[in-house]
Amino acid sequence: MSEAEDSTVRPLAPVGWIGLGIMGRPMAANLLRAGYPLTVFSRRRSSADELVAAGAVWAGSPAEVAAASEVVFTMVTDSAAVEEVVLGREGVLSGAHPGLILVDMSTIAPAMSRKIAAEAQKRGVRCLDAPVSGGEKGAREGTLSIMVGGDVETLAACRPLLEVLGKKITYVGPAGAGQTLKLVNQVVCGLNLLAMAEGLALADRAGLDLKTVLEAITGGAASSWMLENLGPKVAAGDFDPGFTVRLQQKDLRLALEMAAELAQPLPGTALVHQLFRYLEARGESEEGTQALYKVLRQPGLRGSTRISAGGNE
Amino acid sequence: MSEAEDSTVRPLAPVGWIGLGIMGRPMAANLLRAGYPLTVFSRRRSSADELVAAGAVWAGSPAEVAAASEVVFTMVTDSAAVEEVVLGREGVLSGAHPGLILVDMSTIAPAMSRKIAAEAQKRGVRCLDAPVSGGEKGAREGTLSIMVGGDVETLAACRPLLEVLGKKITYVGPAGAGQTLKLVNQVVCGLNLLAMAEGLALADRAGLDLKTVLEAITGGAASSWMLENLGPKVAAGDFDPGFTVRLQQKDLRLALEMAAELAQPLPGTALVHQLFRYLEARGESEEGTQALYKVLRQPGLRGSTRISAGGNE
Amino acid sequence: MSEAEDSTVRPLAPVGWIGLGIMGRPMAANLLRAGYPLTVFSRRRSSADELVAAGAVWAGSPAEVAAASEVVFTMVTDSAAVEEVVLGREGVLSGAHPGLILVDMSTIAPAMSRKIAAEAQKRGVRCLDAPVSGGEKGAREGTLSIMVGGDVETLAACRPLLEVLGKKITYVGPAGAGQTLKLVNQVVCGLNLLAMAEGLALADRAGLDLKTVLEAITGGAASSWMLENLGPKVAAGDFDPGFTVRLQQKDLRLALEMAAELAQPLPGTALVHQLFRYLEARGESEEGTQALYKVLRQPGLRGSTRISAGGNE
Amino acid sequence: MSEAEDSTVRPLAPVGWIGLGIMGRPMAANLLRAGYPLTVFSRRRSSADELVAAGAVWAGSPAEVAAASEVVFTMVTDSAAVEEVVLGREGVLSGAHPGLILVDMSTIAPAMSRKIAAEAQKRGVRCLDAPVSGGEKGAREGTLSIMVGGDVETLAACRPLLEVLGKKITYVGPAGAGQTLKLVNQVVCGLNLLAMAEGLALADRAGLDLKTVLEAITGGAASSWMLENLGPKVAAGDFDPGFTVRLQQKDLRLALEMAAELAQPLPGTALVHQLFRYLEARGESEEGTQALYKVLRQPGLRGSTRISAGGNE
Repeated sequence: MSEAEDSTVRPLAPVGWIGLGIMGRPMAANLLRAGYPLTVFSRRRSSADELVAAGAVWAGSPAEVAAASEVVFTMVTDSAAVEEVVLGREGVLSGAHPGLILVDMSTIAPAMSRKIAAEAQKRGVRCLDAPVSGGEKGAREGTLSIMVGGDVETLAACRPLLEVLGKKITYVGPAGAGQTLKLVNQVVCGLNLLAMAEGLALADRAGLDLKTVLEAITGGAASSWMLENLGPKVAAGDFDPGFTVRLQQKDLRLALEMAAELAQPLPGTALVHQLFRYLEARGESEEGTQALYKVLRQPGLRGSTRISAGGNE
Repeated sequence: MSEAEDSTVRPLAPVGWIGLGIMGRPMAANLLRAGYPLTVFSRRRSSADELVAAGAVWAGSPAEVAAASEVVFTMVTDSAAVEEVVLGREGVLSGAHPGLILVDMSTIAPAMSRKIAAEAQKRGVRCLDAPVSGGEKGAREGTLSIMVGGDVETLAACRPLLEVLGKKITYVGPAGAGQTLKLVNQVVCGLNLLAMAEGLALADRAGLDLKTVLEAITGGAASSWMLENLGPKVAAGDFDPGFTVRLQQKDLRLALEMAAELAQPLPGTALVHQLFRYLEARGESEEGTQALYKVLRQPGLRGSTRISAGGNE
Repeated sequence: MSEAEDSTVRPLAPVGWIGLGIMGRPMAANLLRAGYPLTVFSRRRSSADELVAAGAVWAGSPAEVAAASEVVFTMVTDSAAVEEVVLGREGVLSGAHPGLILVDMSTIAPAMSRKIAAEAQKRGVRCLDAPVSGGEKGAREGTLSIMVGGDVETLAACRPLLEVLGKKITYVGPAGAGQTLKLVNQVVCGLNLLAMAEGLALADRAGLDLKTVLEAITGGAASSWMLENLGPKVAAGDFDPGFTVRLQQKDLRLALEMAAELAQPLPGTALVHQLFRYLEARGESEEGTQALYKVLRQPGLRGSTRISAGGNE
Repeated sequence: MSEAEDSTVRPLAPVGWIGLGIMGRPMAANLLRAGYPLTVFSRRRSSADELVAAGAVWAGSPAEVAAASEVVFTMVTDSAAVEEVVLGREGVLSGAHPGLILVDMSTIAPAMSRKIAAEAQKRGVRCLDAPVSGGEKGAREGTLSIMVGGDVETLAACRPLLEVLGKKITYVGPAGAGQTLKLVNQVVCGLNLLAMAEGLALADRAGLDLKTVLEAITGGAASSWMLENLGPKVAAGDFDPGFTVRLQQKDLRLALEMAAELAQPLPGTALVHQLFRYLEARGESEEGTQALYKVLRQPGLRGSTRISAGGNE
């Protein structure tokens, strides 16, 4: 590596990380393992125990993380949580020095990303919104897809760090554009899920063997990541979460709110959102998104279940 | 090849083919090219010109095709057309000899496949329903997916012929099961199309570049055959048909009718069917299915198109 | 009454009636009570017992009814049943004399009404399609709404008879127009039902008292026949049929098929049709249409049922 | 009037009114005309000109209105506006004296009504949420329906004032219950609108005369306030607002958000909300809600518009 290249990396160390949930913890661990000095903060101190044991430094607040770092990552639950850890009392901006870079990897409303970018700019802080796709597995293995909004120079400065976290980094556009693309991604995922659920429910109701069905249609015009990865779980009656109904609903709500602002009709996405609500009503929000199948495939007879009404005319 | 194996192939020549449309013509040509003697019939004599020039024999009716063949393939428009060419006057059964095999590759109602199988059995004719997926390209290249209903012995006898036509042959179950699976396939395709259309409409409305969007999300959790193959066409404003809205609507109608008989709710599929209707209302039934995008993405401003109503509260 | 007016009535006696179900029996009885000589036929002989005891004459077939009558009414289940009793062997047309009037009061596909009118014309038989609204109660009390397609002269000739059966007679247009309007009526009914079901489900879920809700909103902008008549049944947990889910589904299917022919999108009606399907799947097709409420209002807590997911952001 | 009756009125004079839009102005005028001394405030001073000319007193802020009054009414745009005029700097509570009654007649989120009631209680101020139905006409004529949440004693104290404004006053339950019922009302209205729109679109597409249709089905099972009042406007091509698409969308959004909190599926309401979005996308948010018809009835041929695809099978 030449010195010039090296120099783009050096200013970004040391690194701060805020938010140590299911996604944040393995991502932070990957940075630590890659040799970056790391200061961390989380709502619950215990979430940081392993990282601290491995060499990370605990800070008392987001502001302290900011003071100790050249770049701060946030990976928290939702718009309100980002607002609090960035703009709140003892938030990142209150401890920020000019030149700090803030990379928010949470999935939140694009409007909130734009608001944070605007506030940050007043303090000389540069921002990226950089939500991810790929789940816990992608977080652990450093193979996430990262969708980036902000300016290209800031992305260039952060790229070595992002390459530790993901394998596909797409620059989308100005502040908020990363979030917008993430919500587009979730809209497509939601309807692909419904496609899988309706197709398999119909097949099962008609008495077909779901494994045969999946073998036959995977790889063809009906194939999708959802069908290939969640179809076999449905066939096996496994509704454990990769991604929970609760989180999917949160993302679909953000997408529908953004679409409302843009006057963009999304009738299919609205339907998916309402159908998932049946799972919420039954207290099944913590199941995997493939549980949508259960909303379509009601208990009842299989196979030659012809209803008499059908034969009338 | 041993004699035993060879003997399973021999009785199936000569071969008959009925229906020489966009799909039937290249499929029949593949059989001819593979060395099978071929007798053909189609509604329009001129559809057969090329095949006859290449060695096929024209017959005056489906009955004559049946009389000249050991196995007859049908590839026609819909349930009514299959009923006519098989059960009608001068239909296949009226010219059939005991032991004939009938392979219907059209996409029709499973109930019609069962009716035809029952009528055929009375004449000593064995049937397969063997609809395909893969489009004109798959027909030309012999790479179709073939979903087979009927009995396994009949499939075993026909397998060498089917392997000329497709590369993936799935035995699904008794008569009608092939059609059932084909309709399941179309249900999944329909909603995957809506996923693509809503996602890209939202992205475009929000001012994102569709090519960047497709690069970013293809390969991840949102990916599907539809997104990968039809997404780029949408991005390029290309609504030429691979598969037409008219044919997709025909298949969705069959799926919804089957679901009605089975008392299986398909709210998403019903929505897709209604949204495609807007294209029918505008006289755009002969466009490609990716034109569903145009039902979602109404003309209007792009990018920062915030409507004032959105900001009220 | 002047002789001229009288003369329009006289030629229509005697009267024939085919179809003695829940609707047909009380309607025929009203004509008998009004003094019209009546010949009747029904699939089951026993359905006619009471009418025969009151003076009606039993005929062995629709053809015999036609031979004995100046005007024949049909009130049967569906398109196929009308086709059979009118066009079938021993059907009305096979026994018809020129000048006979056929009034079909069943709810069937407008296309079938047009087909029957065309066939009838070849035999010198004039037709009206005259489906009704108002249910069993309206049939008993002679207060049905009657929607008439055909020509105005034929309607003028039949008007005295129709006035025995209903209190509101609307001439809509040529053959099939009465059926078309009936299906329009059912489309509106179906979505008004969903309005009632979603509104009351939300109210109940939020912990409001349904009787208070109905008192408050009845009479205002939210009011409808469905809300006023079926809302109180829902509040009382009474799902007994006025009109069954099965019959509503049959009518919605006809409406959706007509809309398909006309390329008219009906996304709401398609949704209602799919939601009723959940009742079919549970074997509740013979409940009253107000049971749609049960598809929306899932068992679960009432009142302050806040789900934790809702409070996240 | 007896002294006893009079005494229930006296403590509530003088009266304050905040919000002088399309609804607030005629309502305040009715109170003034009924003899109540009135202090008013509005965002724009000019909105109060007529009232001041008729004897009302202008106040510089909500706080000043509160200081001058025994009961204060608020009738503003949305949750945020109520929050500002009640809880903001110079808001009602900042000028309130113990014993003041606050009656909020805006349509807002039930959760905001509960928040305001809780804050008010800390200051010794009693609250009612009292949204209305009946539109500008009802406001002018004093014939609104008023749905009241809060405690019954406070309602009893305010009843004489409310009886000046409306003719139907329903006590629904504790704080927020009035708003909840209003949103239930809007859910029913929204789907009744869709019923009208789909029914008339189908009728028009099939070539029926809309006036004939309305005459025939009004009064029967399909009838609703929407059909009777907005149907004739649709038939006449009149899309001028009684109630605008923009306001309907605001209310449906509140209803869907409340349903989300309660995990109550509302698939039909979500569809209506998305279909109205097409009008927003075309810049037609200020049209009347009956413009929903235009989303269903696309331009195109009428009457015998059979599409060829329909006749295939």
